[in-house]
Amino acid sequence: MTGMAASEGTTHGYTATKEPLLNRLSRIEGQVRGVQRMVEDDRYCIDVITQISAIQAALDKVALGLLDDHAAHCVIGGQSDSPPEELKDELMAAVARLMRRG
Amino acid sequence: MTGMAASEGTTHGYTATKEPLLNRLSRIEGQVRGVQRMVEDDRYCIDVITQISAIQAALDKVALGLLDDHAAHCVIGGQSDSPPEELKDELMAAVARLMRRG
Amino acid sequence: MTGMAASEGTTHGYTATKEPLLNRLSRIEGQVRGVQRMVEDDRYCIDVITQISAIQAALDKVALGLLDDHAAHCVIGGQSDSPPEELKDELMAAVARLMRRG
Amino acid sequence: MTGMAASEGTTHGYTATKEPLLNRLSRIEGQVRGVQRMVEDDRYCIDVITQISAIQAALDKVALGLLDDHAAHCVIGGQSDSPPEELKDELMAAVARLMRRG
Repeated sequence: MTGMAASEGTTHGYTATKEPLLNRLSRIEGQVRGVQRMVEDDRYCIDVITQISAIQAALDKVALGLLDDHAAHCVIGGQSDSPPEELKDELMAAVARLMRRG
Repeated sequence: MTGMAASEGTTHGYTATKEPLLNRLSRIEGQVRGVQRMVEDDRYCIDVITQISAIQAALDKVALGLLDDHAAHCVIGGQSDSPPEELKDELMAAVARLMRRG
Repeated sequence: MTGMAASEGTTHGYTATKEPLLNRLSRIEGQVRGVQRMVEDDRYCIDVITQISAIQAALDKVALGLLDDHAAHCVIGGQSDSPPEELKDELMAAVARLMRRG
Repeated sequence: MTGMAASEGTTHGYTATKEPLLNRLSRIEGQVRGVQRMVEDDRYCIDVITQISAIQAALDKVALGLLDDHAAHCVIGGQSDSPPEELKDELMAAVARLMRRG
């Protein structure tokens, strides 16, 4: 979790899209609660897994949106004190983690 | 979402592991809320993405656990009224969705 | 690479589908050679990456086909000396590796 | 396959790393031929799938290397006639395809 302390309170690439981003995360939170209810109600496990796949697709979209904002504003937009090369390395490491899924 | 109506109230493969499963899902719900707080606090987007990767890894583990229970109890355990061939097809379709992520 | 020595020369789940399977692998080999030519010809890297994604999708299909044959013939079909529980564990470990991509 | 005609004969981000890149692709081609031999020899399908996972991990590494070169030389390095915003969009579309695997 690099750069965390340094970045508190700073304006970031996703500031403009903060509201829709929070809405999407709130929907994902609701989907996770929905999966909990499915398990409590003993629903068919294949249906539970299908719902988990849908949550993962939604999280992938959020992550891709954040990557895009980061690339636009920080890597090429110059809205960061870090050198572009360093920002690019961080971006690629994040892509690698997403591809390996954590 | 096949078999949903038919399976309400039935005992499923994951019944024995329901408590730890619900605990894991509750932790994942907390992680999603944590990401919302990170966005509200304008945290560095690479850190937000790293946290999303961690949620994806946790969801993968839950999905694999459910697949394993399903294979053990339904596909090979005979705790289902459906023929094994059909259960196997459902299992493989779920695996394909997980690999493509939804 | 478990079970390798033990399985040499045995008839496996995919024996019936061996010909189309070898054809698909041969096409994938051709796609990999195509990517080498693209690099030799200094083709645009985004196009090279798109081609790599296509190879990954083709390999996913081959892997899913093999998993399906294994599940049908070995796990539920009884065409194996190993107990179903053990075969199921192997299957799930293979699924986990495919999801993490190796 | 965008930009293909336009980019024939141009020097690209990966020109400096062309030799090791071709070596890696040649090793991957050998791995695909190895999988064909495993199928011809009726090897245990779980072992074949494990080998496919290894090929996918190797292809992911090649793709990530190409993305990194592209980001370094084209997106932030200015070695392209296209505007950075457009290059960034192409990069993100390639990342999305890699995450969905084709």
